[in-house]
Amino acid sequence: MSSEISRRKDEHIALASSDAVAFRERTTLLEQVTLIHESLPELALEEIDLATELLGKTLRAPIVIASMTGGTERAGSINRELAAIAESRGYAIGLGSQRAMMRDPSMAPTYRVRDVAPNALLLGNLGVVQARDLATADIVRLIEDVGADALCVHMNPAQEVVQPGGDRDFRGGLETFARLAGELKIPVVAKETGCGVSARVATKLRDVGVKTVDVSGAGGTSWVAVETLRAQGAAKALGESFWDWGIPTAVSVAWVARSGLAPIATGGIKSGLDVARAIALGARAAGIARPVLQALQAGGRAGAEAFLDRVEAELRTAMLLCGAGTLDELRNAPRVIGPELASWLGTM
Amino acid sequence: MSSEISRRKDEHIALASSDAVAFRERTTLLEQVTLIHESLPELALEEIDLATELLGKTLRAPIVIASMTGGTERAGSINRELAAIAESRGYAIGLGSQRAMMRDPSMAPTYRVRDVAPNALLLGNLGVVQARDLATADIVRLIEDVGADALCVHMNPAQEVVQPGGDRDFRGGLETFARLAGELKIPVVAKETGCGVSARVATKLRDVGVKTVDVSGAGGTSWVAVETLRAQGAAKALGESFWDWGIPTAVSVAWVARSGLAPIATGGIKSGLDVARAIALGARAAGIARPVLQALQAGGRAGAEAFLDRVEAELRTAMLLCGAGTLDELRNAPRVIGPELASWLGTM
Amino acid sequence: MSSEISRRKDEHIALASSDAVAFRERTTLLEQVTLIHESLPELALEEIDLATELLGKTLRAPIVIASMTGGTERAGSINRELAAIAESRGYAIGLGSQRAMMRDPSMAPTYRVRDVAPNALLLGNLGVVQARDLATADIVRLIEDVGADALCVHMNPAQEVVQPGGDRDFRGGLETFARLAGELKIPVVAKETGCGVSARVATKLRDVGVKTVDVSGAGGTSWVAVETLRAQGAAKALGESFWDWGIPTAVSVAWVARSGLAPIATGGIKSGLDVARAIALGARAAGIARPVLQALQAGGRAGAEAFLDRVEAELRTAMLLCGAGTLDELRNAPRVIGPELASWLGTM
Amino acid sequence: MSSEISRRKDEHIALASSDAVAFRERTTLLEQVTLIHESLPELALEEIDLATELLGKTLRAPIVIASMTGGTERAGSINRELAAIAESRGYAIGLGSQRAMMRDPSMAPTYRVRDVAPNALLLGNLGVVQARDLATADIVRLIEDVGADALCVHMNPAQEVVQPGGDRDFRGGLETFARLAGELKIPVVAKETGCGVSARVATKLRDVGVKTVDVSGAGGTSWVAVETLRAQGAAKALGESFWDWGIPTAVSVAWVARSGLAPIATGGIKSGLDVARAIALGARAAGIARPVLQALQAGGRAGAEAFLDRVEAELRTAMLLCGAGTLDELRNAPRVIGPELASWLGTM
Ligand SMILES: Cc1cc2nc3c(=O)[nH]c(=O)nc-3n(C[C@H](O)[C@H](O)[C@H](O)COP(=O)(O)O)c2cc1C
Ligand SMILES: Cc1cc2nc3c(=O)[nH]c(=O)nc-3n(C[C@H](O)[C@H](O)[C@H](O)COP(=O)(O)O)c2cc1C
Ligand SMILES: Cc1cc2nc3c(=O)[nH]c(=O)nc-3n(C[C@H](O)[C@H](O)[C@H](O)COP(=O)(O)O)c2cc1C
Ligand SMILES: Cc1cc2nc3c(=O)[nH]c(=O)nc-3n(C[C@H](O)[C@H](O)[C@H](O)COP(=O)(O)O)c2cc1C
Repeated sequence: MSSEISRRKDEHIALASSDAVAFRERTTLLEQVTLIHESLPELALEEIDLATELLGKTLRAPIVIASMTGGTERAGSINRELAAIAESRGYAIGLGSQRAMMRDPSMAPTYRVRDVAPNALLLGNLGVVQARDLATADIVRLIEDVGADALCVHMNPAQEVVQPGGDRDFRGGLETFARLAGELKIPVVAKETGCGVSARVATKLRDVGVKTVDVSGAGGTSWVAVETLRAQGAAKALGESFWDWGIPTAVSVAWVARSGLAPIATGGIKSGLDVARAIALGARAAGIARPVLQALQAGGRAGAEAFLDRVEAELRTAMLLCGAGTLDELRNAPRVIGPELASWLGTM
Repeated sequence: MSSEISRRKDEHIALASSDAVAFRERTTLLEQVTLIHESLPELALEEIDLATELLGKTLRAPIVIASMTGGTERAGSINRELAAIAESRGYAIGLGSQRAMMRDPSMAPTYRVRDVAPNALLLGNLGVVQARDLATADIVRLIEDVGADALCVHMNPAQEVVQPGGDRDFRGGLETFARLAGELKIPVVAKETGCGVSARVATKLRDVGVKTVDVSGAGGTSWVAVETLRAQGAAKALGESFWDWGIPTAVSVAWVARSGLAPIATGGIKSGLDVARAIALGARAAGIARPVLQALQAGGRAGAEAFLDRVEAELRTAMLLCGAGTLDELRNAPRVIGPELASWLGTM
Repeated sequence: MSSEISRRKDEHIALASSDAVAFRERTTLLEQVTLIHESLPELALEEIDLATELLGKTLRAPIVIASMTGGTERAGSINRELAAIAESRGYAIGLGSQRAMMRDPSMAPTYRVRDVAPNALLLGNLGVVQARDLATADIVRLIEDVGADALCVHMNPAQEVVQPGGDRDFRGGLETFARLAGELKIPVVAKETGCGVSARVATKLRDVGVKTVDVSGAGGTSWVAVETLRAQGAAKALGESFWDWGIPTAVSVAWVARSGLAPIATGGIKSGLDVARAIALGARAAGIARPVLQALQAGGRAGAEAFLDRVEAELRTAMLLCGAGTLDELRNAPRVIGPELASWLGTM
Repeated sequence: MSSEISRRKDEHIALASSDAVAFRERTTLLEQVTLIHESLPELALEEIDLATELLGKTLRAPIVIASMTGGTERAGSINRELAAIAESRGYAIGLGSQRAMMRDPSMAPTYRVRDVAPNALLLGNLGVVQARDLATADIVRLIEDVGADALCVHMNPAQEVVQPGGDRDFRGGLETFARLAGELKIPVVAKETGCGVSARVATKLRDVGVKTVDVSGAGGTSWVAVETLRAQGAAKALGESFWDWGIPTAVSVAWVARSGLAPIATGGIKSGLDVARAIALGARAAGIARPVLQALQAGGRAGAEAFLDRVEAELRTAMLLCGAGTLDELRNAPRVIGPELASWLGTM
């Protein structure tokens, strides 16, 4: 890979991990979920069990380090650091889009993390538009190269459409999910990247055999924002208008759960309280992308681990104070829903 | 026309196109319509069809350059520029009130745009109070002089009543609509100018044979504001009190649609997202007055077209991201209605 | 009357007519009544009829200059100026509490206005606690001395209880209303002074024969505020806590109307739009106290009349723009009720 | 006791009584209870009866000086001053946690107040985790030593869990209540310390025989805040996240009352209006901790009494103005509930 492309890619990561790409007004609406204090928890803190089943493996804690990177030397070292963290802490870890390694096999090593994460739940990643245009056998090769346990197929039409030169033709997406759900030996995760999955889309996915959805909803990183900051002229103006487009994470989690699918709550998760609220709404696990990357960039592996320690401590504390010893109990814990979230959930 | 009257008329346009005449607190409530993201649109951007039937013609895009001007040299050139834009882009174009040309036939040329817009849907314009006092044959002459496809008959009692010397007697309005709907060969559009059309008025209009309503609701240009800025003393004080009087555009569109009439959503439309929201509420097309005039004044024809390009791009993007390939699909797209709009819509 | 007492009384009026005695946070909630624009009013402005029946007389416009003063030379001249205005404009006029003239007959002349207002609807005034302790015959004498058409019996426990030396025993109030409603030849108006009349009180009053209630609700002049500004120490602290105590005027009007009584909407009426909203909620007329006094003090009789001209012009305009030719039509006009008012009205 | 420990304990009191330990965003929601003005109270102020039965004694007024301190010389003198106030005014008085005197019998004198408060309702205090680990006989000794009429057993898992070295094992809490309710001769009060008691916890407590609950809800003193201000590093970060954790006092009072238990409304009570609102929601009495301590520290006994005079005057005034002559009447008085409180009360 030319150092020019590599430099551009690294700039892209730098931008996407800055606070400038956050949603502006729209929030996750997780802040409208109030868990109710239990004065008599009848639990010991150490007894609390964070374990969750996800995609055939057991996570020690319901945390997914969400799909981010690959394709440059820097990206490769990020992937290895995050994967080692996931391995040691019992999380899932997602790779960034494998499109780069598909186009240029010399990039494959920047995605390979199995040596440092032999047991972690490892998620491959590919855009649905790319997947549509590939034979299943080619996709299988990508999966096997990295040893993924499941494949995230991401849907990101909002980003594409504001990106100069981005995809403009989104036909055949559902058929692609149907094909992959039928033909791959590993599970397929339908994944957004910051705009959330609607009840309508969840139902369609369920009907073609998808079982797990990473909602990646509105309120955290806005990929329209990333493209807007890189665009000029009309594209920039269009991006400004759609900066905050998307379904809040809390809403999407609740909708996907109602459809009978297993939601991963990604998009704007910043704390263990957010994780707890998402689980209370039905999430199987919560995904975190930009905040983990920021912590890694600011403080190295120790910084990322300190951030994740805090997330776990908060989640555990919230569970204790709700009297929930397991995630299943948390899913049934009493809660109060604020008016804006209630009005979204009344719809559709 | 004396250059004195002409100067005053031009001043009027300058005032009416400035930001000083916007509503202050009341908004269109279109911002309370949230369209729901569709991750799997199953559409190609270029496939999206913006075409709409309106008043017997097909528009390429659901945009009406709303009735504004006529009666001075400057007004004439504005009309011709806007009409040429409408022609080239497949929009509808409205003329300003033809009262001036009725009183002074020498002004007629400032309304004539058919040479530059032979095919565009062209809307004549007359106040309902003037129309009441004219024989149908005289109105037919006004229509034929400009070659209009339909006649907007505007209702503006709020403006009149705060205007020193304005109309004070609004009897016979409905009867006028009944007569014109019965006797004219072209369709009649009942049009407000910034205060919106209520469900009660919509029903009355429907019952006398009107089929299309330009709601021109609250939240954009306030004609009470225009008159207030020109008034003195008691009239000014009265105008201040009614500056924000009117039914928000979103409300009026929904009410008119429920009555079984075809609404044109005018009043405070500033973006393609606004157009999309209005269509989702049932509008057949959206009308834009002041923002187009401002873009024209600031940047000439190229400026106006750049503004309209942006509106179309946003509309198209919003449709794609809702999975709506046509305006009819957009009308059925899922949406979340905010509390203030919901409370208006609960009421009749 | 000693000039000392007289000076104190005049200071009291000065204080009670200043903006310092307004409610702080609580409003009338009339601002939550949105009247709905009617584009086809089918009315001429001059045809609009503001007349209302009140207490056996016909007012030209539904305006009561509410009970304010008496008992000093300055008060006497205010009464005469306001009464002359009421006479010439067809309003009702209320006198201030006649307790002063009961105690000191030399003050009676400051309440006598029949020479300047031979036809105006004239309302006498007495506190319910004083009325309780007087024989009916003595009350008849007070009424006849001033030639009142009806007697306002005011209830003001909030003011009394924060006032050092104020009344502390409110027993026998309802019985007093029963007695006066039975024994007086003129109608009795049960009147608050700024805290509003509840549904429960309205029902009790109705059951003892009262037919008209001046709600004098929260949102305008706070009499607790007046006493707080005059108090020291513990009384001042108590007053601060109850400064905003009371039922908003809009709520009280709706409750009283529901009870089958005729409400006069007093308390925080500042404009003709407020009058229109109050009438839409069921008021027979609207009362204005402090704003009229302020206009009189600032601009003399001409100032007060200019203020009242504005109120009438706004009311008439609002009626026209609702398509209401009479107050009865206004009472049936469509309106949207905001959430805070709706939540009060859902309650008893 | 070493002067070192003593100094630390005194610092703790100083911190816990400062405004720095208040909740930040979350309020009691008592401000969402609007009592409705009654213009005809049919009461004399002096006739109003504030008496309430609590735990087998009659309080002259429904006020509990809530459990605070003990264990240092300064604490002992605070206890004696507050107890003397309670005795003279007919309130209940709570002692701080008796854990200190249990561990070090030389501290017992700082809890003994019966000589200055022979008749006041006196509440002992012990944490549920300590009580769990003690034989009933040992607890009886603690009670008898101070001559308590009832024992508050406090539940404070939120405080413990953010406190470095705090309790982490909360099993056996309910069983402890069951045991003490069965075996003690005096009543047991289940008491929170600032996070409120949920409907679920109330039901469990009721089912094991507890009859009275001090809700100590959110909106006043935050014990998580106290510990956060004393903590470092990860514990501090955790504390920041849970600073506002808890059920608002108004909500908890209503929930506990619905469960058929007698609630004491503690947590953020600042005024007599707050007391009145809490009683209207079903509280038997209201508890005040930090505000009483602050008044005592700022102004000595006279300062505390002036504060309590104000609370009583406001309560009495509120009752008069609601037409409630007794606390039972106040519990049935009409009120309007704001939207946020209504949404909590709709839940669970
Ligand atoms: C630097 C960066 C790179 C990302 N790259 C991908 C990607 O390649 N594929 C993908 O599905 N999502 C990608 N995402 C989206 C994240 O997986 C996630 O859905 C989104 O950022 C929302 O989570 P957050 O708010 O925690 O950042 C990326 C996000 C970031 C911040
Ligand atoms: C400069 C100007 C002139 C207008 N003249 C007319 C007119 O003659 N007849 C009419 O029906 N409406 C007239 N309107 C009202 C517009 O058609 C439209 O109803 C109103 O401005 C609301 O749209 P907006 O918020 O996009 O400006 C005029 C508006 C403007 C800004
Ligand atoms: C200066 C002043 C004197 C008043 N005196 C009386 C009075 O003697 N008797 C009475 O019933 N109300 C009295 N009121 C109360 C008014 O009649 C009215 O109920 C109250 O002020 C609310 O109306 P507003 O908001 O328009 O001032 C007085 C009000 C003012 C401002
Ligand atoms: C200085 C201080 C010490 C306290 N100590 C105790 C205690 O020992 N036991 C207990 O049950 N609650 C204790 N509390 C909690 C109070 O009893 C009360 O539940 C809480 O402070 C909420 O009330 P407030 O908002 O009026 O302060 C203490 C509170 C304060 C301010």
